[in-house]
Amino acid sequence: MTLEAFLTAVGPAACAEIEPRYLQGARYGAGHAAAVLKPATAAQAAEWLALAQRHGVAVVLQGAHTGLVQAATPNGQVLLSTERLREVFEFDPLDRTLRVSAGFKLSEVNQRLAEHGLQFPIDLSADPSIGGMLAHNTGGTRMCRYGDVRANTLGLEVALVNGEVLRFGHGLAKDNSALAVQQLFIGSSGSLGLVTEATLKLAPLPKQSAVALVAPSGLDAVWPLYQRWMGEFGALVSAFEGLSAPALAAAIHVQGGASPFATELPPYSLLIELSSELSPAQLNLRELLHAALESAFESGEVVDAALDNDEGLWGLRHAVSEGLREQGAVIGFDISLPRKAVWSFREAATAWLAEHFAPAQVCDFGHLGDGGQHFNLVWPKAAAPLAKDDSLRLRTGIYALVAQHGGSFSAEHGLGPLLQTTYDQLTPAPQRALAGAVQGLLNPGMGLGQFRFG
Amino acid sequence: MTLEAFLTAVGPAACAEIEPRYLQGARYGAGHAAAVLKPATAAQAAEWLALAQRHGVAVVLQGAHTGLVQAATPNGQVLLSTERLREVFEFDPLDRTLRVSAGFKLSEVNQRLAEHGLQFPIDLSADPSIGGMLAHNTGGTRMCRYGDVRANTLGLEVALVNGEVLRFGHGLAKDNSALAVQQLFIGSSGSLGLVTEATLKLAPLPKQSAVALVAPSGLDAVWPLYQRWMGEFGALVSAFEGLSAPALAAAIHVQGGASPFATELPPYSLLIELSSELSPAQLNLRELLHAALESAFESGEVVDAALDNDEGLWGLRHAVSEGLREQGAVIGFDISLPRKAVWSFREAATAWLAEHFAPAQVCDFGHLGDGGQHFNLVWPKAAAPLAKDDSLRLRTGIYALVAQHGGSFSAEHGLGPLLQTTYDQLTPAPQRALAGAVQGLLNPGMGLGQFRFG
Ligand SMILES: Cc1cc2nc3c(=O)[nH]c(=O)nc-3n(C[C@H](O)[C@H](O)[C@H](O)COP(=O)(O)OP(=O)(O)OC[C@H]3O[C@@H](n4cnc5c(N)ncnc54)[C@H](O)[C@@H]3O)c2cc1C
Ligand SMILES: Cc1cc2nc3c(=O)[nH]c(=O)nc-3n(C[C@H](O)[C@H](O)[C@H](O)COP(=O)(O)OP(=O)(O)OC[C@H]3O[C@@H](n4cnc5c(N)ncnc54)[C@H](O)[C@@H]3O)c2cc1C
Repeated sequence: MTLEAFLTAVGPAACAEIEPRYLQGARYGAGHAAAVLKPATAAQAAEWLALAQRHGVAVVLQGAHTGLVQAATPNGQVLLSTERLREVFEFDPLDRTLRVSAGFKLSEVNQRLAEHGLQFPIDLSADPSIGGMLAHNTGGTRMCRYGDVRANTLGLEVALVNGEVLRFGHGLAKDNSALAVQQLFIGSSGSLGLVTEATLKLAPLPKQSAVALVAPSGLDAVWPLYQRWMGEFGALVSAFEGLSAPALAAAIHVQGGASPFATELPPYSLLIELSSELSPAQLNLRELLHAALESAFESGEVVDAALDNDEGLWGLRHAVSEGLREQGAVIGFDISLPRKAVWSFREAATAWLAEHFAPAQVCDFGHLGDGGQHFNLVWPKAAAPLAKDDSLRLRTGIYALVAQHGGSFSAEHGLGPLLQTTYDQLTPAPQRALAGAVQGLLNPGMGLGQFRFG
Repeated sequence: MTLEAFLTAVGPAACAEIEPRYLQGARYGAGHAAAVLKPATAAQAAEWLALAQRHGVAVVLQGAHTGLVQAATPNGQVLLSTERLREVFEFDPLDRTLRVSAGFKLSEVNQRLAEHGLQFPIDLSADPSIGGMLAHNTGGTRMCRYGDVRANTLGLEVALVNGEVLRFGHGLAKDNSALAVQQLFIGSSGSLGLVTEATLKLAPLPKQSAVALVAPSGLDAVWPLYQRWMGEFGALVSAFEGLSAPALAAAIHVQGGASPFATELPPYSLLIELSSELSPAQLNLRELLHAALESAFESGEVVDAALDNDEGLWGLRHAVSEGLREQGAVIGFDISLPRKAVWSFREAATAWLAEHFAPAQVCDFGHLGDGGQHFNLVWPKAAAPLAKDDSLRLRTGIYALVAQHGGSFSAEHGLGPLLQTTYDQLTPAPQRALAGAVQGLLNPGMGLGQFRFG
């Protein structure tokens, strides 16, 4: 037995208990694992990967298991969890960088950095591991200001299935002394190599922020407002989110609070956040935002707004996902679109759904600032559950419309088994062949991971 | 003859005149070309690349020929110039993106964008092509705020030596629907494929800026000032440069003006620029900078400063290179270092030079904000010229010190024949083997370009 021989080689003491959290994905059914291994060092991880490769044993990598595309949930393979990969935590205050092992969680990293007035500026309502964030190139709500994980990664160390541990980059911001092989691992969904550590670029914690939830006069006021405020506030804009009325209503309902608006919910609301390293005495963001809202109110482009300096509005924004789940089964589409195609896509998709999947309710919300859209549907509890085939037909139909509108079928959640068919259908053959050849160089035989780029 | 057969295949009308500018590099001796081809479309370029590959004819790509590492200067190969690649110029004001053919020059792009209040925010004192900027991942003086070319590129189209024209990315900011093969081409020095067009991320033009040239009380005041101001001003800092006294003196001399300082030149001066999309009525940057300088003056960390709203101080900064050339032969090192190692490297390198190359004068200046250093030396006109062997010994010695201090031997000028030996010496064998294998996939036989990553 190859598996047995492999497990003998790593030693029986290496096998950890197969706890349920290793098998249960964040938002989908459970998998199963042949064994769970938790290496404590990069060297040990590399050795085990090489042993698995030699024994023909398939391995799946897992960080905090918060990914949403099934890439970390094992399907019978050996699971290699990175939670014990915590060898390195090296903070450089002058370069504002952090060398950190893959097993650290985002919350821990940011807790430790806060006392230095710094942060790793990726913001989301889950607590992923650094390695998992690299593997999915996490985006989040503040990407329009800070960029994604890729933009904030200066160096990597990876363990390959041939047992090599390679460093890429020197952790320097300006460095062009190599082919960009390092970049391949970012967004590679654990199917190229194991990220053992990264050197991250840190950002100063803002000294103030101001948040508003805005009701534009209608859909056609959304982009003009977006464009004006992005131009006027530039780098001060740290989030620019959009919420459809059903998404906002669901969030209000699950929170049990009152609507932030005096009037009825607008068809689409905007959440804008300004933040700055300057003190309020140097620049008062709340006043600045207030003035902008006043003038948009006078011009009739804004009909209502709630201005807030505390967590209230963000709480509402972050309650959307939970709110939707309360209404029924959520069918999520993590897409992005050229802004000019957002409303036409929405119209086309809504019409197509009405025709083919009448019970589906469009409850979209999104990151207007970076173009990401959560085109989420609620399949009401009252409706007959979607059959597997129908669910596939629904997904295929929506993704076809995304492609027709020049969009991407995976904006920030990355790639995994959930998207394999879509990837295969929507990626042109030459691009797939090339990506597959690159994957073949690093992961020959595809013993590692669950996504096939070829 | 393979070359003849190739030229017959492309057709005699395709060959352009071999003008001197195609052969004469920006700062080094001339090369020679077997022929010069100037395709007008991506399809034509791809066809010619495939023909050359089939006939075993070597090709070198060239944009504006401002590169500093000899990568675009042909050495007997067929030269493919991108100057006629101008098919596409598609501006999207809502996404703030520009789809643009590789042959456009940066100055043209920014001229056309200015009326929309936007820019491609890479700032340097040359006028490169978009394709050349991608191939070298140009940095420049405003990188600490805007990032490098990589950070501002959302999509690419490339022509490969097998004749395929492939698109990567959808020009969207948030997109994780593929393996990051696109990233490989950025910084690949024309040795992987021809970039035919790119989709660039644009930034708003600032509405105001304030610049100061500052004399810190001494070297040990530099980093505390840097750290304080980066923390205080954050995203407002659009440049943070450093100038050694000899570099500043040379710039003042070549400009024929007076010193900006009332007192004698400090050993190291700082140039800081703040800029913002806000109007001066909303936030007065000049006052903000003035207040910061006042308080640093009071604490004794700053002994002199010149505050400026016009081009004067930048003119001085940009005159450094010319100023150094006036003093003698310039030996340039485009390096970057961890900030904590900058002074120790400088000391070690200066001591090593004093021992082995006494006439060499250290005239360093750099991008403190992003860690890039131009550790440039002047070899005085009065000294006996450096023999070729000695020059190699000098370069090798300095690069060894860079490596010892955890630095990079190529910060922003990219890779080319000038750095091949250094790359081979300083890149670990497994990383080179992997990069070589990736290059081999895309450019089998190395018919394209002049840099070997393997
Ligand atoms: C409530 C919630 C909100 C979310 N919000 C966002 C959001 O706003 N934006 C966003 O982008 N994502 C979001 N996500 C998705 C998720 O948090 C991210 O994708 C995250 O990057 C996953 O990290 P993880 O450590 O949990 O990885 P896992 O789920 O454990 O694994 C994800 C992938 O990474 C691979 N992997 C893990 N560790 C490594 C390693 N060290 N080396 C190589 N590969 C590795 C796995 O094999 C798998 O392919 C959200 C998820 C939840 C549950
Ligand atoms: C005065 C001066 C100041 C400079 N300042 C800076 C600075 O501050 N920061 C900085 O980073 N650089 C600087 N540079 C360097 C230079 O401008 C950049 O490296 C620039 O990116 C080169 O662009 P180019 O079009 O001139 O390319 P070229 O010199 O023509 O070519 C450079 C490389 O790109 C390849 N190439 C060209 N076009 C393509 C294409 N379409 N597809 C694939 N490969 C291609 C070539 O084969 C070659 O390898 C400076 C240069 C000068 C002369």
